[in-house]
Amino acid sequence: MHQRSLIKTVAVVLFGLCIYAAAYTYERLDKNNSVLLVVDHQVGLFQLARDYTPTDFKSNLLAHAALGQVFNLPTILTTSAETGPNGPLPKEILAMHPNATFIKRNGEVNAWDNADFKAAVEATGKKQVIMAGITTDVCTTFLALSLVEAGYSVFVNSDASGTFDTKTATEANQRMRQAGVHVLSLFAVSCELMRDWRNTPGTVQMLPFFDQYLPSYGFLARAHDAAVLNGTLSGLDD
Amino acid sequence: MHQRSLIKTVAVVLFGLCIYAAAYTYERLDKNNSVLLVVDHQVGLFQLARDYTPTDFKSNLLAHAALGQVFNLPTILTTSAETGPNGPLPKEILAMHPNATFIKRNGEVNAWDNADFKAAVEATGKKQVIMAGITTDVCTTFLALSLVEAGYSVFVNSDASGTFDTKTATEANQRMRQAGVHVLSLFAVSCELMRDWRNTPGTVQMLPFFDQYLPSYGFLARAHDAAVLNGTLSGLDD
Amino acid sequence: MHQRSLIKTVAVVLFGLCIYAAAYTYERLDKNNSVLLVVDHQVGLFQLARDYTPTDFKSNLLAHAALGQVFNLPTILTTSAETGPNGPLPKEILAMHPNATFIKRNGEVNAWDNADFKAAVEATGKKQVIMAGITTDVCTTFLALSLVEAGYSVFVNSDASGTFDTKTATEANQRMRQAGVHVLSLFAVSCELMRDWRNTPGTVQMLPFFDQYLPSYGFLARAHDAAVLNGTLSGLDD
Amino acid sequence: MHQRSLIKTVAVVLFGLCIYAAAYTYERLDKNNSVLLVVDHQVGLFQLARDYTPTDFKSNLLAHAALGQVFNLPTILTTSAETGPNGPLPKEILAMHPNATFIKRNGEVNAWDNADFKAAVEATGKKQVIMAGITTDVCTTFLALSLVEAGYSVFVNSDASGTFDTKTATEANQRMRQAGVHVLSLFAVSCELMRDWRNTPGTVQMLPFFDQYLPSYGFLARAHDAAVLNGTLSGLDD
Amino acid sequence: MHQRSLIKTVAVVLFGLCIYAAAYTYERLDKNNSVLLVVDHQVGLFQLARDYTPTDFKSNLLAHAALGQVFNLPTILTTSAETGPNGPLPKEILAMHPNATFIKRNGEVNAWDNADFKAAVEATGKKQVIMAGITTDVCTTFLALSLVEAGYSVFVNSDASGTFDTKTATEANQRMRQAGVHVLSLFAVSCELMRDWRNTPGTVQMLPFFDQYLPSYGFLARAHDAAVLNGTLSGLDD
Amino acid sequence: MHQRSLIKTVAVVLFGLCIYAAAYTYERLDKNNSVLLVVDHQVGLFQLARDYTPTDFKSNLLAHAALGQVFNLPTILTTSAETGPNGPLPKEILAMHPNATFIKRNGEVNAWDNADFKAAVEATGKKQVIMAGITTDVCTTFLALSLVEAGYSVFVNSDASGTFDTKTATEANQRMRQAGVHVLSLFAVSCELMRDWRNTPGTVQMLPFFDQYLPSYGFLARAHDAAVLNGTLSGLDD
Amino acid sequence: MHQRSLIKTVAVVLFGLCIYAAAYTYERLDKNNSVLLVVDHQVGLFQLARDYTPTDFKSNLLAHAALGQVFNLPTILTTSAETGPNGPLPKEILAMHPNATFIKRNGEVNAWDNADFKAAVEATGKKQVIMAGITTDVCTTFLALSLVEAGYSVFVNSDASGTFDTKTATEANQRMRQAGVHVLSLFAVSCELMRDWRNTPGTVQMLPFFDQYLPSYGFLARAHDAAVLNGTLSGLDD
Amino acid sequence: MHQRSLIKTVAVVLFGLCIYAAAYTYERLDKNNSVLLVVDHQVGLFQLARDYTPTDFKSNLLAHAALGQVFNLPTILTTSAETGPNGPLPKEILAMHPNATFIKRNGEVNAWDNADFKAAVEATGKKQVIMAGITTDVCTTFLALSLVEAGYSVFVNSDASGTFDTKTATEANQRMRQAGVHVLSLFAVSCELMRDWRNTPGTVQMLPFFDQYLPSYGFLARAHDAAVLNGTLSGLDD
Repeated sequence: MHQRSLIKTVAVVLFGLCIYAAAYTYERLDKNNSVLLVVDHQVGLFQLARDYTPTDFKSNLLAHAALGQVFNLPTILTTSAETGPNGPLPKEILAMHPNATFIKRNGEVNAWDNADFKAAVEATGKKQVIMAGITTDVCTTFLALSLVEAGYSVFVNSDASGTFDTKTATEANQRMRQAGVHVLSLFAVSCELMRDWRNTPGTVQMLPFFDQYLPSYGFLARAHDAAVLNGTLSGLDD
Repeated sequence: MHQRSLIKTVAVVLFGLCIYAAAYTYERLDKNNSVLLVVDHQVGLFQLARDYTPTDFKSNLLAHAALGQVFNLPTILTTSAETGPNGPLPKEILAMHPNATFIKRNGEVNAWDNADFKAAVEATGKKQVIMAGITTDVCTTFLALSLVEAGYSVFVNSDASGTFDTKTATEANQRMRQAGVHVLSLFAVSCELMRDWRNTPGTVQMLPFFDQYLPSYGFLARAHDAAVLNGTLSGLDD
Repeated sequence: MHQRSLIKTVAVVLFGLCIYAAAYTYERLDKNNSVLLVVDHQVGLFQLARDYTPTDFKSNLLAHAALGQVFNLPTILTTSAETGPNGPLPKEILAMHPNATFIKRNGEVNAWDNADFKAAVEATGKKQVIMAGITTDVCTTFLALSLVEAGYSVFVNSDASGTFDTKTATEANQRMRQAGVHVLSLFAVSCELMRDWRNTPGTVQMLPFFDQYLPSYGFLARAHDAAVLNGTLSGLDD
Repeated sequence: MHQRSLIKTVAVVLFGLCIYAAAYTYERLDKNNSVLLVVDHQVGLFQLARDYTPTDFKSNLLAHAALGQVFNLPTILTTSAETGPNGPLPKEILAMHPNATFIKRNGEVNAWDNADFKAAVEATGKKQVIMAGITTDVCTTFLALSLVEAGYSVFVNSDASGTFDTKTATEANQRMRQAGVHVLSLFAVSCELMRDWRNTPGTVQMLPFFDQYLPSYGFLARAHDAAVLNGTLSGLDD
Repeated sequence: MHQRSLIKTVAVVLFGLCIYAAAYTYERLDKNNSVLLVVDHQVGLFQLARDYTPTDFKSNLLAHAALGQVFNLPTILTTSAETGPNGPLPKEILAMHPNATFIKRNGEVNAWDNADFKAAVEATGKKQVIMAGITTDVCTTFLALSLVEAGYSVFVNSDASGTFDTKTATEANQRMRQAGVHVLSLFAVSCELMRDWRNTPGTVQMLPFFDQYLPSYGFLARAHDAAVLNGTLSGLDD
Repeated sequence: MHQRSLIKTVAVVLFGLCIYAAAYTYERLDKNNSVLLVVDHQVGLFQLARDYTPTDFKSNLLAHAALGQVFNLPTILTTSAETGPNGPLPKEILAMHPNATFIKRNGEVNAWDNADFKAAVEATGKKQVIMAGITTDVCTTFLALSLVEAGYSVFVNSDASGTFDTKTATEANQRMRQAGVHVLSLFAVSCELMRDWRNTPGTVQMLPFFDQYLPSYGFLARAHDAAVLNGTLSGLDD
Repeated sequence: MHQRSLIKTVAVVLFGLCIYAAAYTYERLDKNNSVLLVVDHQVGLFQLARDYTPTDFKSNLLAHAALGQVFNLPTILTTSAETGPNGPLPKEILAMHPNATFIKRNGEVNAWDNADFKAAVEATGKKQVIMAGITTDVCTTFLALSLVEAGYSVFVNSDASGTFDTKTATEANQRMRQAGVHVLSLFAVSCELMRDWRNTPGTVQMLPFFDQYLPSYGFLARAHDAAVLNGTLSGLDD
Repeated sequence: MHQRSLIKTVAVVLFGLCIYAAAYTYERLDKNNSVLLVVDHQVGLFQLARDYTPTDFKSNLLAHAALGQVFNLPTILTTSAETGPNGPLPKEILAMHPNATFIKRNGEVNAWDNADFKAAVEATGKKQVIMAGITTDVCTTFLALSLVEAGYSVFVNSDASGTFDTKTATEANQRMRQAGVHVLSLFAVSCELMRDWRNTPGTVQMLPFFDQYLPSYGFLARAHDAAVLNGTLSGLDD
């Protein structure tokens, strides 16, 4: 009976669809399809971020902005009410991106509610968004969720997002993750963009970047090079 | 053969449904569609909450209740056996909500099991519930799960929910999250309700609120205003 | 054309099924449909559990076993190689359950691999399993995952499961949660079984239980009762 | 021989002096011999203090100032370069002490280097100094060490001194302790000044103070009073 | 010249005195010269102590009182305003010491300010005081410092003293230590009183004590005894 | 009408498929279907891993490699640019696997991007992959996600993956978990491979393994065996 | 009798000496009497220091060296076996001190055991030593104790000394403190050298220093200056 | 008058004595004047030590015993009731010291109370004691205090002393420090005994020791040697 075979076929198709839906695709960051967003990394708001030491967090903010430079990513800067308590962006970030689109919002908490910002993102034509902001639970999360809703793949550089305390950060990251946001470390973002040390950017560009922003890696390389050039055996029989 | 085309069509429809189901919608808090629940924030139960400092937690409880005031949300208070060890609500909360519906439960652990409470929530006609309670793993979680089951969108203000220790809080929040509950910080709840500093409530109402309940933001604003009014340059060449 | 209407109908049915599937059902613990499992709470293995203080963990183990007493739950005890380093169960647990089924496993790490244990669980006819074990990542997790696979609703009392460190506990609970296991605090398990303080077990049975195993609640009640009986006003004008 | 007896006598006297020197005298705070110093509790510097939550620290700063009110202590306020980034004192502190001596330093890090400040302290004629400042390792420590050198008994309210991180606070407190500074909690300072709940200030004045600044004690009193007035026995047979 | 030889002799004597003074004497607890003080271990004040888990702290309070029983020490109980929020002593402590001197203070924060309490301590004729109280920074510290001033050797059982947070506890213990107070763990107090497992109290009395109050030791002994009685070799070739 | 019955049947089939899809299958590690991957456990990269103590982490790295030995698993070693700062593998790991396939990558961050490595994994014919690497967020995560995409069941031994800090580890594990990676402790991996202490490998092989790499278990067994052989009862009446 | 009056006089003199000895002198750092030591801040040893984040510690090392520049202090660099695993100094430190005395030790753990190093310190003629090293418990402590023994006043910049873990750091600092070493934060060292913002070095030199090495202070100044120049009132009525 | 000049002279002498007494002498460990004590490092007691991870603590215990080997120190082993729950020493320690004096105490908690142990220590003729034990607050502290009283210089290897929790360890170390005990890290003990890498023991003996017991140092040396032998420059322009 054809209904029966029909049913079987439908079942098979459905099962295939399920399998297809269940199959995991590892969406990697693609430096040619990414835009970098610097969201409210303002010198006043900086004081609210207590889930990092100040020195770590400043370094992470600068590293986030530097990703745009080293990978030549279209970069959009935005601030919230910067003549008020939130303050301006750090001069180092402005110096890295003199020609970046810079949207100064006058009231919208969620940058996506600002038409100019939205247009700027859309104008890049990129589908992968690398972003970070202060505070994680508000400026980062609200925008990230709107971007997912708008169909973007969102990669939050969690090292450059800060908030009141670790608990708030954890819960905000969890909220974003549930909406499909990828929450990554600075090192993971960097390496996923680079992929191979023989690429450009590769060793030549990224070792100085890590030396600057991940000193444990930088000092590893420095000690290694010193050993290659001038080292004497330690005496350990290894 | 029509079965074949039927199958194709079914497959397409199903695929569309899947896509539709998979598409993420960012459900934001809407101040016109929200009800605020204050659950068992009783002065006796307060002693059980050890995942915050007492001063932080008292401040968070008052801030939670104040959300109802500043955003003019329908607010429902409830307590569990308040003539027993759990004790009454803090007088400050009662003073903020002299006309709120107040359901004093005599035995039900889960407020949703109390018909009056359930009716009070339903009577608001709101579909988004902002809530917090003591303890997180019992009073908050049980009610939140029942509310999700009843079709509400539930937003737990995690800063105003407390319990025995951090581990218990984390696990309770995880349990709620898996049922689709949104677990948010006080700052996220506030900003998602406000959306734009130019709205009402906006700057005029919310800066005093943050000055009171998020002192790192309040003191940022105070220092900023002092600088605008009487400040002299620091001497840093920035 | 009937195919078209068929497709529409199929789509509608599928959509309904999706909605049905998406609709959250809050499965509460039901004291009449639950079995309590005490898994490898052995005095030797006790030393491996370092994610609790020893005094807290001993108290939590005894509280777990006491749930069977106070709620009159069918209770199954099991141990792994108890003449070896793992050691016997604490005498207090044995004393609470002199007539419980007690399965002494001689080799199976996962209790579900032991036919007698499996038969004992099945013989209860219950569909909700309340369990805890040492270590969380092995004895608790392996059994919990097998029980989910076998169709049971599994509620892990996380306060009575211990392991090498907090990180291992967190990751094991996460693994179980992803399989649909409910990971709950002792207080949540207790209150979900009780539901209403006017039930039996209710105030009369559970206050002594909490006084014993949750001393912050017990001392709250003691101080309250002292105040009711002999208290004088503090002098605070509240 | 008289030298011999002389030597014996000298030895005895010396021994007595040693005993006398070794004998510990518990120097308690005396509300009639104390001056309160509020040192650089400025709204800008507030952001540097990360060894407390912002809400805790604001509460502790206000409590410190309130000690002057409730115990009617001579109180001296001082700030460092308050038109610069350090900012002014919180308005709440100024409102509590409208008539206090207020020394605005223009450059001296150590307030004792400012002649007006020194004169103001000396003018009080008090020998016990209760003080706190931001940051603990600089503004509190430098002044405290100078005060010890000048012969004062110094009591640092450690809850109202904040700095970059816990390690820095611990080391600064250790440095002060080695110079003979007493490092105390807010509660210890308060109770040592009060001594007996039947004094004035005593219950009437201090319970509201603790209700405001030590909420775990305040809510204990509130719950107690509610139990005395309206409480019903819990049902616990204790 | 005799002055010269006199000076030499004086110098020698002084040097000897210095050496004598510098020589360290290890003052051990002596069960025949000790009195046990239970200070404000009240069920209300219990809620203020957040530097221990509630279960640990309750166990430590009971262990402290049990020291009096097991070592047959003269024991003095005292409470502060026990009809107020502080509440009564736990019934378990009262049951252990039905005949102890019990001083209910009506206002004095420092128990030494209460003449009856002071007389009770003096009446014991003991020179070593073992004590603990709530809160560490006030009730324990004030009394301990007064006792040192009065010439007693003071041994604080730090496990049975609790306060608002770890920082406050650490600072209070540091303050006491500087006055010469010995700050010890429960285990150290117990073992210094016992000295040798072959004494009375010794193994027979102290193993049950440790089994009750130090479960990691108790379960070690239980597992050991089970191995001796019924154990089979593990199979480890050790 | 046949459409109606068709629809019903389709609905039933779909429902069944849903049930089938929803039914949880506990995929256990199978020693006969597993391959072990040692990823970038290099002596230079070792310094970057700060989420473990160095001694713990070295022990965990050796334990990971030893799993291949004790369970006779096909094992693949890989390194990244080992003549550079990352350095070679520890000699102990090389000594355990003299005949393992060893892929030295010259540039690919993600080992799966290296054709030889991919071929080596595929050549094993195994479908379950047990792996660990440095750093967790890059070397472990990138490979794990690619393996899931390629259809493997991936089991990450989290104890042998290390990275810059706990936050980065937690977030990386969370990212992997969302892709379906199983994140397990060393103990869980070991026991899931062993399943029954009576198997081979079982007691004879695994007790020495645990004695070496999980000393709390090893010393439990040693103390137990000593008690069996030479023990005397403790004197505790248990 | 003259002996008697002699005795009295001796007693008085002795008492005076005691008072004199007891009198505390606050020895402040004096920029004109200080030498800066950079001890084993080598890029290899850097990896051993895990009591700071790498970024914090690198910043602290550079700040320590920069103290020599900004306060024009005689500066001595030393390294231990720098062609071995310990590695060379960071290039940034060498660049700051191209003309500093630089002692490369070939074996002595304690730099004071190296005659050249000792001579270099003595040659400065300074009596206050500001120093920091890796590791705190060995390189810093050994040298600091020898310097105290040699009569120097030693000020350890604790932020620039690192070791295996926090416990080791705390214990080493405690050991040094007991020998009379001053253990200070970077901020305390800086401010004690500067003393007054109107000095040279003062605001002009030190604000850029703090902006670089204490970003929470630097960003405070940046936000302040932005407010002075372009700020608008926040709208908070404060 | 000669009394006057006598007094002056006495004063001068006394002052000199004070200066002499105040002068700090850095007592370094001297390998020729030291004895090593291994106190109650028993496999049962091992379970009580929770202030280290088990793997760290086992490594530290073995390192402590290995100090005796590598520096050829007279070594005394002692255990408490080793046929009871405390258990025997680890076989590795026994294997390192087959000829060491080994005192098995049958009841004395404080090893110094055991005449054989005391005689064994005295028989070494050494005046510096390097020791560690379980638990820190009892077995280590009691013996250390007795040794100080007996005139020994006591150096506690704090890494090889363990107890119930960090708080207990900190307080016990503080108690010992106040009696003049030196509390040191394993690394400090090792380096103070070695003094110079060119000594014997020096590089040849101590690098393998650190490679074994301080893996972060060991892997530093391994990576360094690999770089010297086979390394290629990283590409970082440093």
